[in-house]
Amino acid sequence: MLVLKRVNKLSTADGTSTVGQVIKCKAAVAYAAREPLSFEDVLVAPPHAGEVRVKITHSSICQSDLYYLLGKDKDPIFPRIVGHEAAGIVESVGEGVTSLQPGDHVIPAWVGDCGKCFHCKQGKSNCCDVLLHNFDSGVMLSDKKTRFTTLDGKPIYHFFGISTFSQYSVMDEASCAKVNPKAPLDKICLLGCGVATGIGSAWKIAKVTPGSTVAVFGLGTIGLAVVEGCKAAGASRIIGIDIVPEKLELGKEFGLTDTINSKEISKPVQEVISEMTDGGVWYSFDCIGKSGVITSALESTQKAGGVSVILGLAADNDKVTFHPSTLLYGRTWTSGLFGGYKGKTDLPGLVEKYMDGTINLDHYITHKLPFAKINEGLELLKESKSLRCVMHYDE
Amino acid sequence: MLVLKRVNKLSTADGTSTVGQVIKCKAAVAYAAREPLSFEDVLVAPPHAGEVRVKITHSSICQSDLYYLLGKDKDPIFPRIVGHEAAGIVESVGEGVTSLQPGDHVIPAWVGDCGKCFHCKQGKSNCCDVLLHNFDSGVMLSDKKTRFTTLDGKPIYHFFGISTFSQYSVMDEASCAKVNPKAPLDKICLLGCGVATGIGSAWKIAKVTPGSTVAVFGLGTIGLAVVEGCKAAGASRIIGIDIVPEKLELGKEFGLTDTINSKEISKPVQEVISEMTDGGVWYSFDCIGKSGVITSALESTQKAGGVSVILGLAADNDKVTFHPSTLLYGRTWTSGLFGGYKGKTDLPGLVEKYMDGTINLDHYITHKLPFAKINEGLELLKESKSLRCVMHYDE
Repeated sequence: MLVLKRVNKLSTADGTSTVGQVIKCKAAVAYAAREPLSFEDVLVAPPHAGEVRVKITHSSICQSDLYYLLGKDKDPIFPRIVGHEAAGIVESVGEGVTSLQPGDHVIPAWVGDCGKCFHCKQGKSNCCDVLLHNFDSGVMLSDKKTRFTTLDGKPIYHFFGISTFSQYSVMDEASCAKVNPKAPLDKICLLGCGVATGIGSAWKIAKVTPGSTVAVFGLGTIGLAVVEGCKAAGASRIIGIDIVPEKLELGKEFGLTDTINSKEISKPVQEVISEMTDGGVWYSFDCIGKSGVITSALESTQKAGGVSVILGLAADNDKVTFHPSTLLYGRTWTSGLFGGYKGKTDLPGLVEKYMDGTINLDHYITHKLPFAKINEGLELLKESKSLRCVMHYDE
Repeated sequence: MLVLKRVNKLSTADGTSTVGQVIKCKAAVAYAAREPLSFEDVLVAPPHAGEVRVKITHSSICQSDLYYLLGKDKDPIFPRIVGHEAAGIVESVGEGVTSLQPGDHVIPAWVGDCGKCFHCKQGKSNCCDVLLHNFDSGVMLSDKKTRFTTLDGKPIYHFFGISTFSQYSVMDEASCAKVNPKAPLDKICLLGCGVATGIGSAWKIAKVTPGSTVAVFGLGTIGLAVVEGCKAAGASRIIGIDIVPEKLELGKEFGLTDTINSKEISKPVQEVISEMTDGGVWYSFDCIGKSGVITSALESTQKAGGVSVILGLAADNDKVTFHPSTLLYGRTWTSGLFGGYKGKTDLPGLVEKYMDGTINLDHYITHKLPFAKINEGLELLKESKSLRCVMHYDE
């Protein structure tokens, strides 16, 4: 019933179907770095073959959106519609699309999987050659053009292949995961990036085992999701490291058993952790992306058998220097996009993990805003006042 | 029958048993770095509780012996008996020893496993806390003393816990692996270090999968053993990289499908490999230990899902600098001692892999010498004229 009701809403104000039509809707357009987004009407073309058009119902704001909007990307493209952590309902599908149909509840997947390319077939990685190759292009795969235009017909570029800061967005079929229609879209939108990245880093990349010890450096949304993932995996001790007392306190609600304020210790944090854990933790996670923290995280693990996962994005000039003997006794250093998950394939299962209570999503949502107030949401994240601000597109 | 016959040989020249007696035998003693070993009589005390005394029948010479003898160790101890790649027969056992008895055929294990410590119980690593902690001490665990003395009573220090350049050596029970008595000791001695390290790096650390692509940097014994391990694991393409044409040619006999002489290419080897393999190999192995090679090996792997294993030992001042984004798409960088094997636990199985033909040991043996000519053997390795020189202790 819910599905049907939603489908009925996928029509223009006068009741005619939008299928096959250009849709005029609201979007938050970035015209330049470090400037507020322009909340304006845009035109969204119908999906081409192999594409779907999704009515975005909810989107949250992730650090990667902010990173781009603050001008930190090396090769920025403007105007552009960013946003990549969302949920919605399929409005229409292009020719040949078989995995989705109008009315399906979906999470757009910035790490999609075509299932046919070299990497998808090998199964050793979640990086789809086809989609990832087109990832930064700002245009659709099929014709190298945009589906977004301004009202006067100028192209607006896509972002991460899914551009969710628009009431409607067009994406590749392979970048759109069909999920349980009973799941609340205003919650599962969080699985589109940050929370899935943290959970997957614990479950799929590090493969945290029951009874093990863990250190998590940086307690933003991703760090907290790592903590939650480690707790769900049965870790017996989870040490959180941050410089903000409130974050350390909050982390306890997500599963931290110990906290270290790295501003308040007189020796290197890896030494403190080594003393606390008889030689180091089995798993560590850098959720900061600074070379000093990345090496501290590595050195915080057991030198024999420790696993350290890099989740943070370091600045271009911030290189890591280490002696290879740091790995000699069998440490492992690794990383991965989106927690190692293949979006289209794995997101449905993650939604079920929310539905069965394994993953809690509610406690990441510190703010809710109507879509029109997106610039307020960006400010909250920029000032570290929010974890996740969920925007409601119908309000 | 064979066992009994061997036991009978464990007696002094006049036919009395050596059990419980100090044994006078030949050993190759290092009195200083960069000097020939002194082939002389030494005294070997009986094993204490928890120890065994082994009659070494064969020993080969490994790069780590040479490394120490050339004075590259930071904290050298002299006089010392080095050697750690050998096979032999248990002569006598100390009080409480249950896993071994006189006459057992054994491989001394420089990476032993007590089975009781934190790391042994966790099973995430092959690094035994008890044995590895004592590894560099030069003395036995139980009383912090040596079992070797010169004829005038001065202590001679142990090496890697097993000191195999002596006709008799005392070691911890946990550092001695009982193996199939039908296996030829003059061959399986090679499993004591180099070959097992290479094979294990492919099988146990990297976990090379059938049909995968591989690059091996440096084709000494360990590199060749990696090649052999990858071939046995079903790798479809194995690229060898070296600067010596003869080594590249030899590598083909071990399983190389492609070779690159890194002196003869005009662009970085990682670029050459990327072009050969559509983006890189799935697994790479550094068997050199220089920072430039270590990073080339990493960058030779598929950026999404590639695994690179560091086997070489880099000089103290030879650090690696890299940008963490090199791992971003899911590369893994790791290392490990002795191919990740627990010596006492895993060596018996490796011997069976030789017995059933999975591992060929014969083709590593380029030279054979009587023990008395050990300095000739060391020169051969130093001058890269040998892969493995097996010394026969009875000749």
